[in-house]
Formats: sequence, structure tokens, C-alpha cells
Amino acid sequence: MTLVHELDANDPLAHKRAEFEIPKGVIYLDGNSLGCLPRCVTDRMQRVVTHEWAQSLIRGWNDHSWIDMPARVGARIGKLIGAPEGSVVAADSTSVNLVKALSAGLQMRPDRKVILSDTGNFPADLYMAQGLIRGLGQDHVLKLVDPHEVEAALDDTVAVMMLTEVDYRTGRIHDMKALTEKAHAVGAIAQWDLCHSAGAMEVDLTAAKADFAIGCSYKYLNGGPGAPAFIYVNPDHLPHVEPFLSGWMGHEAPFEFDLDYRPAHGTERMTVGTPPILGLTALDAALDAWDNVSMHDVRTKSMALGNLFIEEVERHCSEYGLKLASPRDASARGSQVSFHCPEGYAVMQALISEGVIGDFRSPDIIRFGFTPLYVSYADVVAAATILQRILAEGLWDTPAFKTRSKVT
Amino acid sequence: MTLVHELDANDPLAHKRAEFEIPKGVIYLDGNSLGCLPRCVTDRMQRVVTHEWAQSLIRGWNDHSWIDMPARVGARIGKLIGAPEGSVVAADSTSVNLVKALSAGLQMRPDRKVILSDTGNFPADLYMAQGLIRGLGQDHVLKLVDPHEVEAALDDTVAVMMLTEVDYRTGRIHDMKALTEKAHAVGAIAQWDLCHSAGAMEVDLTAAKADFAIGCSYKYLNGGPGAPAFIYVNPDHLPHVEPFLSGWMGHEAPFEFDLDYRPAHGTERMTVGTPPILGLTALDAALDAWDNVSMHDVRTKSMALGNLFIEEVERHCSEYGLKLASPRDASARGSQVSFHCPEGYAVMQALISEGVIGDFRSPDIIRFGFTPLYVSYADVVAAATILQRILAEGLWDTPAFKTRSKVT
Repeated sequence: MTLVHELDANDPLAHKRAEFEIPKGVIYLDGNSLGCLPRCVTDRMQRVVTHEWAQSLIRGWNDHSWIDMPARVGARIGKLIGAPEGSVVAADSTSVNLVKALSAGLQMRPDRKVILSDTGNFPADLYMAQGLIRGLGQDHVLKLVDPHEVEAALDDTVAVMMLTEVDYRTGRIHDMKALTEKAHAVGAIAQWDLCHSAGAMEVDLTAAKADFAIGCSYKYLNGGPGAPAFIYVNPDHLPHVEPFLSGWMGHEAPFEFDLDYRPAHGTERMTVGTPPILGLTALDAALDAWDNVSMHDVRTKSMALGNLFIEEVERHCSEYGLKLASPRDASARGSQVSFHCPEGYAVMQALISEGVIGDFRSPDIIRFGFTPLYVSYADVVAAATILQRILAEGLWDTPAFKTRSKVT
Repeated sequence: MTLVHELDANDPLAHKRAEFEIPKGVIYLDGNSLGCLPRCVTDRMQRVVTHEWAQSLIRGWNDHSWIDMPARVGARIGKLIGAPEGSVVAADSTSVNLVKALSAGLQMRPDRKVILSDTGNFPADLYMAQGLIRGLGQDHVLKLVDPHEVEAALDDTVAVMMLTEVDYRTGRIHDMKALTEKAHAVGAIAQWDLCHSAGAMEVDLTAAKADFAIGCSYKYLNGGPGAPAFIYVNPDHLPHVEPFLSGWMGHEAPFEFDLDYRPAHGTERMTVGTPPILGLTALDAALDAWDNVSMHDVRTKSMALGNLFIEEVERHCSEYGLKLASPRDASARGSQVSFHCPEGYAVMQALISEGVIGDFRSPDIIRFGFTPLYVSYADVVAAATILQRILAEGLWDTPAFKTRSKVT
């Protein structure tokens, strides 16, 4: 038995792969963009459409507890990120949730004007902060520093430190606990985006004493394209949060139809409009995949997969100009590995055409995500071999692979 | 042939009923809360899950044009509400869209502080305005008047007149064209909520010169529970709208991952986070039901159904204290009929247990929606007959029917 087969044979998560639909001939290393379909989702979607919606109709809100889905699904996500029962709801998009959290954080520090973030943050997060600042018209400033300068930039002008734990391009991890502690020491609020963390790493919001957290569920949580996002509010803060987006689902008694808003007692106050039941149902089913999974096992395998990939690629492909863009130290890296790669866009298209699906991030990064629930060690070795062949034979060098698609 | 059968036999929309799944033994008069399942949705949902998501995975954004769904589905809704191509997107919830529109309207009138609405507006809309006002902290005021006093309350202090065209409780219609004209005459922005209008009546946003409009798609548009909502921006305003919720999907070039937000040229700038593909797919399929449907036929039948129901209920049930809560004049009424009814909650529960599904709205209103695509004249007569029996025999008078559910 070769090393790689031994690794797969001893993988405590190997049995999970069968729970996912993986297209024939595909090595899927893009679960950090859109997770694979958990097989159980298919039946659940069929049921919610043909049974719950079609047969129960409006009664579904009570009979199938649709109305509780944001809290119920949120609680399941909460378990994966160290959030206590009742502190997470599933709702809206990450971007909308970011505004909920950021506006609440700014309210908590009315005398401070700085939102501190870094240039490695996902641009969508920065856009939302920019829009909020413009809209508020209260002289807030979005201060961007290099990722490694965040700690030094924390001072008593900072209202909210708004960071993403794992850099979407490089996979570099911020030390959530240390930075949150430092933020608190200068009186700032710590807000974390967990898009590339939830389901990929051991996250402990409680131990980190994070104030707010948000994230999406369509990456490592496999909720499906555009699945509902989540928001966490530290239970100590919740009573003081007056939601900016004060919707009827966040009202203490939505069906009394009062003319005045009164926030719900729980984290439900962070919900806004009618919950998207089809999307929440897919996500709820997808979360079944996490039952009885140890996040420690996930993280251990994720690091090993990444290390193996780096080793294989560097052994076979370094002569073609590839340069590791991710931290070499697995403990400083999320569940992805990125390389700077000349003609990276075309190389990735060639890879995809050969069945190895990763993605490209401007200006020159090819990115590979490792989702321990369904990626094997054999996948990793095969992907590196195919990458080598593409580079060695120049298979990427055709016009078809150089034409940019709308979505990269 | 009795009158009612003649009416059904001559109904130009009668053939549409077969396109919907209607539970056996149910007369569904709650399509104004959640529309029935259009049969074609089932296959489309199956396909988007097992084919598009499972097989295309991340490639689906390009291969199945997921990325264009907000604009594509929005354009289909636009056709039903008199909005020109490219002026509507499907995204987020009605409440979130309300904040996008209202914040844009307030930006356009920076020297005015009044948001004018009425006490018949759906409370969710008022809650969102209240939250926005608190968040902005700029002395805006939400001024609420009686629905019939809106016109008189319009003056040059009003920044935005924020109304819902059809009253969710009574079905009373605001004159969109006249009120918009009056709002413009005093320099105010006119924002319309079409939740109970889209798919129920002939709406012509262009002719009315509306500035902004929003609405949901799970009522008369049959998009499914919590389906994505829509937002319309008058094309004349679009270039000047700097979105408050400035998300990456509204960026001019989302996949360049610039650090600074630049709004997209089109109405796409009103989109925010990653689009909810499962929900948008169900909605897209549901909209097939409107192909080749004349909205004039829909409105004509809707008025006739409502008139017939009023006639039948008043003939058979008036001795039990029922009192019409909706305008008697069909042209002043949306696609619903409401009655004040003593013990209305219990009466509605009894009706539901007998297969007639309508709903209850505090404090004493029983509400019946007429969705011309799948409700027949025979349904209307049968529903009134069952209501009479429940009232005559006091079937509502049991504790089981008096216990309030979480969602009413």
C-alpha cells in the first residue's frame, strides 16, 4: 500500500465522502466557494416543496415550524463555532448580516469613529462598511492596514475591529483570540467574519470572547448556492442591541401587528424579513453531515491535506514559476492552499477542463480548497499530478482558457 | 347550469388551475399570504439541486447563469408591474429592500426630515423605517396618518411618502397614480410596497411615475415560502442612487475584488450578497404561470370573485355579526375580502378545519384572498356556505379553535 492509500485507509472521516454527491471524474477542490451537495438534501428539498409547501400551504409556518427555522438552523451552526445555544440565527446574506453587526458595534461606541480592517479582508465586507459609513454620514472612517499591522493599529480611536478570520486569497489565519483580547484592551468591539472558518476549523467564539460574528453557509457548510448566512451576537451584548434593520421577524410579537417595533428577547431580534424556507431547508439538511463529526478530526485532516498538496506541487511544479501564497505552517493556514501562478487564470481553466476544480483570484492566484468531509488524500496527489502535466505540456496556452468568464 | 357553473365555464383563466397543486378537500383563500405550488416548480427544484448544484458545482454561476438570476427574474416580475426592462431585481426580503429604497429616497431629499406613511401600512414596513431613523440619528420622523388623510398630509416637509398600495387587512387600494402625482407636486419621493398588488392587479409603475417600489413574491406570484423579494428603481433616479447596502453583487466588477465600492451601472447595484439560487429558481419557475396571462383578465376575475363572496356571505351570514371590512366597491379593493367577525380567530380555525383556508388578522378580521389563477367561482360559493354552517352551528366554539398558534 502506498503512503497515500494508507492515509486514506486510516482517515477517520473517510466514510463521510459517501454522504456527498461528487460528479464523476471530478476532483473538487473548491468547497471553499461552493460545497458539494449532501445527498440527503435532495429528498428534503423534494419534501419541502411537494409536501410542506404544496400540502400544508400557509399552515406550514406552524405545522412544520418554518417560523423557528432561523433560530433552529442557527443553533446547529452555533455548535460548530463555539457559540452558546440561542446566540446564532440563520438569515439573510453575510453582507446584510455584516451591516447588522457593524451598526450595532458602532452604536456601542458612539464616541469613536474608526472601523479598523485590513487589506486582506474580503472586499464585500469593506464595501458594506463603506456604504454604511456613507449612509450614516457621521464621519466614520474605514481604516485599512496590512493584515500583520492590525494589532499595532488598535488604539482608543477604534470603535470596531472588523476582520475576516481566514484570508480568502491566501488562507492566512488571524489569531481571533489574541486580536479580540487586544481590541478589548483598547475598548474596541471585535467583529469576525467566519466565511472561510465555519466547518473548516475549530472556532470557539465563546473562548475568544468575540462580540459579533457573521458568515456564510454555502462553503464548508454545504448549504447550496446562495444559502442563508448566519449572525452571532455575544449574549452579553444582546440586550443592548437595538437592531438597525428592525424587521417584523425580529419583533417581540410579530403577529400582534403593532405599529411600533419592540425587539424580540432572543437573537431572533437580528432577523428581519420572512425567512427563506427553501434555502433554510437545504441548509438544515446539509448540516446533518456534521452530526457526530469531530471538528478536531476535520482540522487535523485539513492541515494534512494542505501539507500534502504543498509538498506534491512544490516537488513537481516549482520549475514553472509557481510560488506558495499561503502560509507554509499549517497552523497558520485555513483549509485552502494558494499559489501565485503566471497565467493563473488560464492554468485554472485547463485544470477545470481536466476535472480538477479549484478557482482563480485576481491578480495571479490559483486557489485550492480542502474540505475534509469529502476530499481524499488520493484526490490531492492526483490533482498535483494533473497540474504538473498541464504546466509541463503547456495545455493552458490556448485562447479558450484565457477568455474570462463573468464569474471567476 | 347554475350561475356559478356558468361563470366558471366562461372563465378565461379556468385552464390555469391545472397548473397548480391544490390539496384535496381544500378551498384555498390564502394565496395573499402564501401562493399555491405551481406544479412546474417541483421538477425545476429537483433539477437545480441534483443537476445544477450537484454536477456543475461552482461552474453553475457561469454555466447556468446563476449570477444573472436577480436581474433575469426581476425582469419577469417587472413585466407584471409595468416596470421597464432592467429596472427591477429580485433580491433579499421586502424589508431589506424597503431600507434600500427608503435610504436612497432620503438621500435624494437631504433637507427634509419627514417620512410620511399611514396606519394601514403593513407594520413591518413601519418597523424598518423606525430602525433606519434610529440608526441614521439625523432627526428624521415617521409621520403616520389615517390612510384617507395621506393626501392632505403631503407638504414640503415630506422627504418620502412610503405607502403600501393595498392594505393588508382591508384590501383598500391607495390611488398610486394620484398620490404619486401629489407627492411630486410637493417635491416628495413616492415609494410603494406592492406586496398585495403584484400578480393581483394591474400595476403600472411607469404610468404612475413611481420613484421606488418593493414587494414580495410569495403571495400572488407563488414563489414559495420566504421567496426572494424585488425592488424597482425609476430609471431616471438610478444613476444618482448610491446604495446604502453596497454589496459586492452590486459592484461594477465584483470579481476584480477591488478594495473600493463602485456601483454597477444597472439596477444590479441594488443587489447585495450572493443571490439565493434555490429560492430564485423556485420563483423563476413559478413565474412561468404568468406567461400569456392577461393582467386585465386577472383583475376582472378577482373583482368578480370578491363581489360574489361578499354577496354570498352577506346573504347567508350577516345575522351572526359579520361586517364587511373591505371596500364594497371592487375597484377600490385589492384581491381580498375581509370581514370583522366576533370570535374571528376561532371562526377562522373552524373554517380551516373544514378545508376553507383563509387567515385572521388582529383584532377581529377574517380575511379571504382570491387568486384568479386557481380559485374558481364554485370555490367562493362553497366557502361562504361552509362559513354559514360554522356560524349557524357554532362549530367555532371549542377551546381547540381558540388557542392561538405562534403564526396567525
